[in-house]
Amino acid sequence: MKAEVELGNGTTSLVVSAGSRRQIVEQAQSLYDKLIIVSENKVLARLDTAWFPACPVLSFPAGEASKSLQVASKLWSQLFELGADRNTAILAVGGGVVTDLVGFVAATFMRGLPLFSVPTSLLAMVDASVGGKVGIDLAEGKNLVGCFYPAAAVAVDPELLSSLEARDWADGMSEVFKHGILSGPDFWSRVKSFTPEHANDISGVESLVRAAVEVKLRVVKEDPFERLGLRATLNLGHTFAHAIEWVSEFQVSHGQAVGLGLLAGLRLSRLLGLLRVDFEEDLLNSLKAWSLPTTLPEGDWDWEKMELAFSRDKKNRHGQWNFILPREIGLVESVRGPEPELVKEAFGSLMRGVV
Amino acid sequence: MKAEVELGNGTTSLVVSAGSRRQIVEQAQSLYDKLIIVSENKVLARLDTAWFPACPVLSFPAGEASKSLQVASKLWSQLFELGADRNTAILAVGGGVVTDLVGFVAATFMRGLPLFSVPTSLLAMVDASVGGKVGIDLAEGKNLVGCFYPAAAVAVDPELLSSLEARDWADGMSEVFKHGILSGPDFWSRVKSFTPEHANDISGVESLVRAAVEVKLRVVKEDPFERLGLRATLNLGHTFAHAIEWVSEFQVSHGQAVGLGLLAGLRLSRLLGLLRVDFEEDLLNSLKAWSLPTTLPEGDWDWEKMELAFSRDKKNRHGQWNFILPREIGLVESVRGPEPELVKEAFGSLMRGVV
Repeated sequence: MKAEVELGNGTTSLVVSAGSRRQIVEQAQSLYDKLIIVSENKVLARLDTAWFPACPVLSFPAGEASKSLQVASKLWSQLFELGADRNTAILAVGGGVVTDLVGFVAATFMRGLPLFSVPTSLLAMVDASVGGKVGIDLAEGKNLVGCFYPAAAVAVDPELLSSLEARDWADGMSEVFKHGILSGPDFWSRVKSFTPEHANDISGVESLVRAAVEVKLRVVKEDPFERLGLRATLNLGHTFAHAIEWVSEFQVSHGQAVGLGLLAGLRLSRLLGLLRVDFEEDLLNSLKAWSLPTTLPEGDWDWEKMELAFSRDKKNRHGQWNFILPREIGLVESVRGPEPELVKEAFGSLMRGVV
Repeated sequence: MKAEVELGNGTTSLVVSAGSRRQIVEQAQSLYDKLIIVSENKVLARLDTAWFPACPVLSFPAGEASKSLQVASKLWSQLFELGADRNTAILAVGGGVVTDLVGFVAATFMRGLPLFSVPTSLLAMVDASVGGKVGIDLAEGKNLVGCFYPAAAVAVDPELLSSLEARDWADGMSEVFKHGILSGPDFWSRVKSFTPEHANDISGVESLVRAAVEVKLRVVKEDPFERLGLRATLNLGHTFAHAIEWVSEFQVSHGQAVGLGLLAGLRLSRLLGLLRVDFEEDLLNSLKAWSLPTTLPEGDWDWEKMELAFSRDKKNRHGQWNFILPREIGLVESVRGPEPELVKEAFGSLMRGVV
């Protein structure tokens, strides 16, 4: 799959195919004077980097904590030391933390260096690396500082998933489930039948990833800057998920939180009388198949903290909470200001295991 | 004058007229839920702020030192505390430091809040506030971190110049001289004849500012992201100017440095045999009329430091220095990799006062 994605302030060339990581290196080197690879220590340790060309490689500690001003600031200084200028291409190699952080650093250094991206996690392949959102966290919340900066090119190379740990596979699958719900019955049934034993079938993986990327592409093409409400549908499950991550102090991973968020959203939709065709059993089975949690882990799930987290959501308008809720597979609705008691009940079901 | 400027990733509505500061406040308030004004302590002290509506006002210490990650970081936190979301308009009120810094903060908070701008200095009116360049400095150099983020609207209100100090008038005039050289004989002769005694004639000021803004607009409309080389012509005089500012540790103001840079550029053009019609006498007279320096102040003008500064310029490609040099009034040329000895001679003339 090859696509040119016009994102309002630039065009991204997107390739999904085995071996595409090598093509993107050639492309970046042929177009620009210099190439600098930026990645994460853990990714570099896991990855066979024989495909890296002879060029500087910068790296930083693994984990969400690196999406900080401090790390961004260090990278800017390192780019300066290396003599990076607007003819220097930056290649981000890693998961969502890497593509977000390195994307932001590239977007803002000298007002923008050409950005190339090789996502290495399933989550980054189907979500973070597509669509031009880059950014870092503040103490006050995730992704509070960032911009829309389309990569020049993204190479989604399913071969890189062969060394991915089971937990990281599961994290990515929760975003694939989201794309399945957004897309419709055809893709949803493919997603449902894709179980962990299929993870070793490279052509099956490639085809699933391609279809998931296409769901996201269709949306971001229409609404690159999240102005029309359409791109906000990608937020399905994410209002709950971001709050769960934050209240757990990031002990619950993004993928686990998204799975729980999809479940809570489905139940909230039912409580609000919006759900036309119930698919809870399907969703529960899919989450369980990938060992994703269907109830919250033990812990201090204070409702007031959750309320505070909802109130901090970037997608709020006029101070009202906003949820994207499913009505059936393939149809979602944006709901502003739902009754807090019902939101609390939907969230509470994640502790009890039932609604 | 009213213009809609399409800048590739957004449209800026630009008004140049007396009283337009009030219109822009009304516009921002009618379009968005909330308004937050961000300015600089010194600007707020100088300005009659009776036209400010009832809304929060954030401010920071005056001067280039505020264009830092620390101040940006504090403003992001303050915006968060005030509950700013994407329906909150930011109104930047101030000179170039304010429009650059506040523009960058607005561009990156939650991936972009709507930005409105009321430049209060002549320099910001004719240059900094037009064209979507926003950014901050790093220890390593000026404007190293930033992006292209067009304001929703800019109100250039010449009434605000009535309280401007003579030194700040002169700083802005050096950018007007640059626009005069870029534009051609007609505007250049108007610029030459605009002397300090005209600063109190509000309609004369308005007409000069309008014409200067139009010169910049023509260029940025064609090349918003500085990709075609056209926008780089606005760098006339600025390669020398940035280096002079940096080597003087910012004791020489931007406007003074631009005046000196225009002079050094003209002389370098002559040394390279590029200058077709000499206008040094005109330029010297114009600088003197506004008490702008035509020679460098006493100090440690080490040539090696200047070379280092030239090497750090964002507009360099392939490691070669880049200068925009005049051939005659209305015609400039981009020159890559000129003989360093000639650049040194042109720079040296600023110490001796002659070439």
